[in-house]
Amino acid sequence: MTENVEDQVNFSQTSGSEQQTPHFLRDVIFHGKFKRLKALTPEENTRCQHGLFFQDGQRRVDYVLTYSVKKSSGSHSTRQSVHLLTENVVARSFRHGPQSGGEKLRAKQTQRTKDSSSVHSSTVIDMELGCSGEIFNGQEDQKAFRREEFEGKLRDMGLELEKDEDGKIPGVYFVKIHAPWNVLCREAEFMKLKMPTKKVYEVKQSNSIVEKISTLISKILEPLHPHVEEHQPKNIKHLSHTFSREKQHLFDLSDKDYFFDSKTRSSIVFEILKRTKCKAKYSMGITSLLGSGVYTAAYPLHDGEIDEESADPNDRKLLYEEWANYSVFYKYQPIGLVRKYFGEKIGLYFAWLGLYTQMLIPASLVGVIVFLYGCATVDDNIPSMEICHPRNNITMCPLCDRVCSYWKLSTACGTARASHLFDNPATVFFSIFMALWAAMFMEHWKRRQMRLNYEWDLTGFEDEEEALKDHPRAEYEFKVMQKSLRKRQKSQDKIEKLTFQDRLPAYMTNIVMMLLMIGVTFAIVFGVILYRISTKAALHMSSSLITRNHVQLTVKTTAAIINLVVILILDEVYGAVARWLTVLEAPKTDKSFEERLIFKTFILKFVNAFSPIIYIAFFRGRLVGRPGSYLYVFDSYRMEECAHGGCLMELCIQLSITMLGKQLIQNNLFEIGIPKLKKLIRYIRSKQGAFQEEERQKKLTRYETDHFLEPFGGLTPEYMEMIIQFGFVTLFVASFPLAPLFALLNNIIEIRLDAKKFVTELRRPVAARAKDIGIWYNILRGVAKVAVIINAFVISFTSDFIPRMVYQYMYSPDGSMHGFVNHTLSYFNVSHFQDGKEPMDPSHFGYPVVICRYKDYREPPWSNTPYELSKEFWAVLAVRLAFVIVFQNVVMLMNDIVDWLIPDIPKDISLQIHKEKILLVELFMKEEQGKSYIIDSSTSADGKENCSKHNNNSKVAPPRSRRHTNSTKSF
Amino acid sequence: MTENVEDQVNFSQTSGSEQQTPHFLRDVIFHGKFKRLKALTPEENTRCQHGLFFQDGQRRVDYVLTYSVKKSSGSHSTRQSVHLLTENVVARSFRHGPQSGGEKLRAKQTQRTKDSSSVHSSTVIDMELGCSGEIFNGQEDQKAFRREEFEGKLRDMGLELEKDEDGKIPGVYFVKIHAPWNVLCREAEFMKLKMPTKKVYEVKQSNSIVEKISTLISKILEPLHPHVEEHQPKNIKHLSHTFSREKQHLFDLSDKDYFFDSKTRSSIVFEILKRTKCKAKYSMGITSLLGSGVYTAAYPLHDGEIDEESADPNDRKLLYEEWANYSVFYKYQPIGLVRKYFGEKIGLYFAWLGLYTQMLIPASLVGVIVFLYGCATVDDNIPSMEICHPRNNITMCPLCDRVCSYWKLSTACGTARASHLFDNPATVFFSIFMALWAAMFMEHWKRRQMRLNYEWDLTGFEDEEEALKDHPRAEYEFKVMQKSLRKRQKSQDKIEKLTFQDRLPAYMTNIVMMLLMIGVTFAIVFGVILYRISTKAALHMSSSLITRNHVQLTVKTTAAIINLVVILILDEVYGAVARWLTVLEAPKTDKSFEERLIFKTFILKFVNAFSPIIYIAFFRGRLVGRPGSYLYVFDSYRMEECAHGGCLMELCIQLSITMLGKQLIQNNLFEIGIPKLKKLIRYIRSKQGAFQEEERQKKLTRYETDHFLEPFGGLTPEYMEMIIQFGFVTLFVASFPLAPLFALLNNIIEIRLDAKKFVTELRRPVAARAKDIGIWYNILRGVAKVAVIINAFVISFTSDFIPRMVYQYMYSPDGSMHGFVNHTLSYFNVSHFQDGKEPMDPSHFGYPVVICRYKDYREPPWSNTPYELSKEFWAVLAVRLAFVIVFQNVVMLMNDIVDWLIPDIPKDISLQIHKEKILLVELFMKEEQGKSYIIDSSTSADGKENCSKHNNNSKVAPPRSRRHTNSTKSF
Repeated sequence: MTENVEDQVNFSQTSGSEQQTPHFLRDVIFHGKFKRLKALTPEENTRCQHGLFFQDGQRRVDYVLTYSVKKSSGSHSTRQSVHLLTENVVARSFRHGPQSGGEKLRAKQTQRTKDSSSVHSSTVIDMELGCSGEIFNGQEDQKAFRREEFEGKLRDMGLELEKDEDGKIPGVYFVKIHAPWNVLCREAEFMKLKMPTKKVYEVKQSNSIVEKISTLISKILEPLHPHVEEHQPKNIKHLSHTFSREKQHLFDLSDKDYFFDSKTRSSIVFEILKRTKCKAKYSMGITSLLGSGVYTAAYPLHDGEIDEESADPNDRKLLYEEWANYSVFYKYQPIGLVRKYFGEKIGLYFAWLGLYTQMLIPASLVGVIVFLYGCATVDDNIPSMEICHPRNNITMCPLCDRVCSYWKLSTACGTARASHLFDNPATVFFSIFMALWAAMFMEHWKRRQMRLNYEWDLTGFEDEEEALKDHPRAEYEFKVMQKSLRKRQKSQDKIEKLTFQDRLPAYMTNIVMMLLMIGVTFAIVFGVILYRISTKAALHMSSSLITRNHVQLTVKTTAAIINLVVILILDEVYGAVARWLTVLEAPKTDKSFEERLIFKTFILKFVNAFSPIIYIAFFRGRLVGRPGSYLYVFDSYRMEECAHGGCLMELCIQLSITMLGKQLIQNNLFEIGIPKLKKLIRYIRSKQGAFQEEERQKKLTRYETDHFLEPFGGLTPEYMEMIIQFGFVTLFVASFPLAPLFALLNNIIEIRLDAKKFVTELRRPVAARAKDIGIWYNILRGVAKVAVIINAFVISFTSDFIPRMVYQYMYSPDGSMHGFVNHTLSYFNVSHFQDGKEPMDPSHFGYPVVICRYKDYREPPWSNTPYELSKEFWAVLAVRLAFVIVFQNVVMLMNDIVDWLIPDIPKDISLQIHKEKILLVELFMKEEQGKSYIIDSSTSADGKENCSKHNNNSKVAPPRSRRHTNSTKSF
Repeated sequence: MTENVEDQVNFSQTSGSEQQTPHFLRDVIFHGKFKRLKALTPEENTRCQHGLFFQDGQRRVDYVLTYSVKKSSGSHSTRQSVHLLTENVVARSFRHGPQSGGEKLRAKQTQRTKDSSSVHSSTVIDMELGCSGEIFNGQEDQKAFRREEFEGKLRDMGLELEKDEDGKIPGVYFVKIHAPWNVLCREAEFMKLKMPTKKVYEVKQSNSIVEKISTLISKILEPLHPHVEEHQPKNIKHLSHTFSREKQHLFDLSDKDYFFDSKTRSSIVFEILKRTKCKAKYSMGITSLLGSGVYTAAYPLHDGEIDEESADPNDRKLLYEEWANYSVFYKYQPIGLVRKYFGEKIGLYFAWLGLYTQMLIPASLVGVIVFLYGCATVDDNIPSMEICHPRNNITMCPLCDRVCSYWKLSTACGTARASHLFDNPATVFFSIFMALWAAMFMEHWKRRQMRLNYEWDLTGFEDEEEALKDHPRAEYEFKVMQKSLRKRQKSQDKIEKLTFQDRLPAYMTNIVMMLLMIGVTFAIVFGVILYRISTKAALHMSSSLITRNHVQLTVKTTAAIINLVVILILDEVYGAVARWLTVLEAPKTDKSFEERLIFKTFILKFVNAFSPIIYIAFFRGRLVGRPGSYLYVFDSYRMEECAHGGCLMELCIQLSITMLGKQLIQNNLFEIGIPKLKKLIRYIRSKQGAFQEEERQKKLTRYETDHFLEPFGGLTPEYMEMIIQFGFVTLFVASFPLAPLFALLNNIIEIRLDAKKFVTELRRPVAARAKDIGIWYNILRGVAKVAVIINAFVISFTSDFIPRMVYQYMYSPDGSMHGFVNHTLSYFNVSHFQDGKEPMDPSHFGYPVVICRYKDYREPPWSNTPYELSKEFWAVLAVRLAFVIVFQNVVMLMNDIVDWLIPDIPKDISLQIHKEKILLVELFMKEEQGKSYIIDSSTSADGKENCSKHNNNSKVAPPRSRRHTNSTKSF
């Protein structure tokens, strides 16, 4: 691949430029981005200018640190004043490195780069000096000193640094870091990285029929695969082994520059940056230096350009074309490449998102079928037919006090028919299906994760190893330091950690704020209810007939929109509050910070998104009271009832508006708009010079371009968005079978949107190793668990499924649904209305109403216990509760069975892991035999020698040992 | 420790013996069991005679294989005929080993052992020849050949073998195996054993107050700790690291004989035995050789004697005194020593059993308190007072047709009062408590397990590693071979595994048999019900008044005893059936065999133990019908009712009889009796010689004594017993709060009983590494989950808790329980009895009964719908169901919270693991620096050299490499 590129380089293109470099070089700067040009010395300079390599064009930039310095005077005049401080600074900065070596290098470097521009040698000197001389004011000086110390330590660790102080961005300076081969080796061994060995083996399909089918399927799905060339055939895999310098002969080190890919190199450097401590106070590694502003940013570089057509292929460009592109929305994601470029953690996110989207396809298909079944059977539905039939013209009790009058049930015909779309037996099937779907999704994900772990050589990697690398956060260190300073006046003990008492105020604030926020959410839900009640009453009083006819629609729509807007606003507020609270709490490590933040954000956002929906599903229409003794809020507002046909219809409306609104506005509008806006602001802010944007971009080196990108802020928001969506898809799916479809449509866009963001809008994140998606899996499991219970309650309490069943099998005279509507309506004697609550217009229909009907199971006025809950009520309630128990336990049992039946590790993977291990064992056994053979033949056959070669401490009695050896040989 | 022993050896004691060894040796054979006597050559012989060492007294016997040979003639005359075959056999057996080496050894061996008895040299020759010459008949010859081949391979692997062919047990021959140091090293590295390094660190308690408290507690608990000397102080721990020959300098190898303890040595040898394959056909390692009878047994040796007072201290004796002893029942178990002697798997079992027993203490305390509360409040209980009050003398409907008459409710006074003991509000509290207790137990166990993992250096060990070692079982190999032979006639493909089709018959048999067995259980339960009904009816008809008065008691007791006997018998049958079915299924590996066996045994035994109880709890008394339309089985038997006061009382009786009976008879009687019986049988069988038992035992060597012990049959029966008990403790705890107490009493004995069995009755098991208790944890979780639901149903449906609550809060006129009894009884007009079913003696009480009462919620005869279920019934049912939902979800939520709140890894352990890792990292970093320092100072400072030292394949361009290096140095 890369070999071809070298030949294809086009040297003939020209372009105007303002650089002082020779003409020959100028061409290459803007058109050729070479990967490997060992022989050409001038191109080294080119590559260095392009910013992916050091000035010598040899050493790759693995990481970039930036810092800003507020200059007291012009940048060129300061250089003279530097030398005033040189002696002092050099002495300090070279405490750890041999000064003579530095001098030697400088000489060589200058010699070697004599044919390149004259800038270089001065840069090299700057490298040595740091920028400590440039500022004289206290704080800046302090920062410069700490930079110096830090960079000195980095050099001690073996890293190579280069400074670029006359970049095109004023006030921003760059430190480029390169990790040489021996550092990479050392750290790779240390981090227990698994690398492919030279040993290759063939992955065989066990069964020939299975193989044929899978070949056929993969042929059919061929167009769905992205055009990402894999360098090796699919059925051949390199055996991987933890990298170790002692076992170096196992690995293919023919090309040392590319043995560790760019993401591995940068993560190795980042590891060193995190680990390297400055002596001064508590500052731990780069994170605390970033926190205290000593450096302003730290990031690895992107692989290259994406836009320019002439740019030669790089992984970033490939990703841009084959992944971060709406035109390939129907294709699989090139997860392997994503992982190669962004690391395992981000790779897992996209793999998860991909699987989720894939799994939504069957769910939305079944959802659509269920919806269509509802549409098809709406005309055969006896209850809605009965309501619509003009013969059954039942007089209903008024819906509000005084202003509303009696109404005919047949006016609810439309609602009743619409209800049937979402409230039919298929819904029950669908919610069981979705509960199982969620379980299947979990299982599938576990398997996919395992497969990826295997493919990405993470099988032996322990997360505990990762935890070790989790250094305390800068904020935590700072708090400990503060406490230490406070206490030092009293005692001499060194404070090492924060106790519970220290954290108590923060914990209290957390609890209080969380409760407050949840309270605010509930208050807003309640406010919307009041709005709905009062508006409805007000509109009912309106004289205009049209207004009165559209009361329901107007109120419902406005209320839902208010809800949506409130949810959107509070979502942003809660995100900020959660972050603030977590910062206040000062968790020790990044991992616990992330977990606590996720926990808080999840609770707040979940409550925010679902509390109006839960109100509608379980409380609305249940706290109404009965005619003659309605329940009043604030003594004047009667609680709202559901329309005839249950609250399921309203739940469905609320759900669809919230879900669609959130997805359209929040996910897409915000996610596309805000990063663009931020980028714009950053451009404008730094646009202090006068030159044009595009022109500048062309001239900028890689690390300067990346500096303008948004820093990577973690995957939490991405996951959170998807989890909330997962909630919409599973929690109330019984009431809204189209939810999976909408989620699917959203996610198809979402994948490419996120991909675009990662490839083009963000700085390259440091690759993080991860075996799983961590806490998110638990949250998903939790949501799926809650979904089972909520769906059970929605079916049994919100929908009319159970009353219909009970009527059909217990009360119906002929076993059909005829008479169901009449059965659900209780009788009310209008003379029992409370004073002042009866309708103003009792003869609305032209005749005086004596008995009106209302939807409830209560005794008629003529029974011994009028208006008490009837036997039917208790029977229906018992059946409803029994249904909840049966549904919950059956679904949980089925989930457990699914969990148990589907093995967590796919069979082929477990076989291959087993096979790989056996191959490794064989490899080492062979090596072992080889070793003992050499020893046997060379030395005087002393078996113990082989074993205790390095052992300096064991006191082996020579005669005994010899005796042993003899016996060993003889058997 | 061991140093002292050497000095204390008593050479002066004498004893008579029939051995041909010199007088001096004879003394030591029977009285001195030395561990380390390097200098004394004559004692070597002693130790060898004692059986723990080879004939040379130097090499420890790590493993013993036994085989039996049916001799065609006397054992001494055959030796001559051997040499006829010698040439042939020797040539075959030495195909893999150098023959000259063997000859050399024989010469040396003979020379060295010249001062010992003359038997030895001939044994040495036998060692070479195997026993192949001794038998001429076909099968025996085949076996001998395979033994030879196998032993040859073992020698190739580096093991040292010694044969003992003139032992004191006729027909049984022993192959003693010793693993020399280099083999141990190789295998330890290979098995990734973690061994303590020389580096020691101090475990600090972080907080001084916490430390003080824990010191105080440990001082108070001091007498509860067993007197097992720990060689190192508690707060000092050796840093552990995976053993590696390259890093040998890290480990303390001053005493190579004891660096690997005996359990590690034997498990290493076992590992080799399992791995070593014979070429002949499919035979895989020792398991298949044992399966095909080539060897009769394979076991490691116990550490020494336990009984003799003069025996010097060994781990086995220490365990016997401080662990396997009823007199120390109140003490903690010396788990560390158990693990050291038996390995991690068995150590975990006893740790689990210990924790379970410990956790039972609070549970039984609360249980007793709940029971006492019931006792104390029995006189204040209004419902039972009402029943007992002579004024409320309600006439009840007869309990059986015709022969029974009406009865007065006050006769049920005793039952009602007794019911209250188990059916009171405290029971509800107790079952919630026990559900949480189970969750706490799980969490505690996870933590304990983690702590043990840390203490036993298993933290880095992966179970996957273990899975690799799981070779296919012999039965599986055999089946594959059979199939291969069958198929070979058709095609030339080599069959490698069994397909689903091959297994289908076995699977079908499994399913059918399992269903059949479950059916048998149900049939027996039904049979017992019929017995109860018919006996009751028959006894009621009896003319004797005393018989009639004791009807209830007689029937209940006999039925419960029949149930118990059936359960005990079926338990044994089901154990055998499950094993047979699993063998039929032929799972591939030992692990899957064990899992499948456990699964089947668990299902069968659980159904067996709990189906009568479940019948009583949930079905008895519910399918009765009502007076006038009772439900009949086989047209003549009326279904049984519960006594007044609910079925809880009967459930309690059934539970206590089953549980106590099972524990007393099965666990204790069987477990003590059967091994003793088996041992006796084996003794009698092999007692073909005439000499006395005790005398013989004295003369036997260690490996011969161990041969008479029962082989270790796995931990499955031990765990199964405890799981069933756990079921009794949790599943129906709502009805029997004393269950934890009985379990506690049983387990205190059980621990010591099991310990005794392991220490004295069983051959030493091969130490198996394990991080957890495997499938048992999942089963425990499953039982705890089911327990929540079952307890919810027991409280709401079996007990009268809900009806009482409903009455008190919904129907009671004054909010008290007065009138409850009357409320639960429905009215029946005796004229509505079916013909022939009415009592023969209607005027039993001296007046004609018109209305009798029965316990149910039904409409009275005078209502519009007589005898239909009343509104109260539905209300109570709804509340019952609601209670189930609330109980189940609240308890599940609390379990989840407990699970979430209690971290799986104890904080101190996680801190220590972290600290250890940091120490290890520091150690290696220091080593790293040392290395690079050496290289830096010695070689010409080429950084890359260090890294690519062993790398033969990398093509480094020298000039480039030098350039790199220079730049490295300069920074």
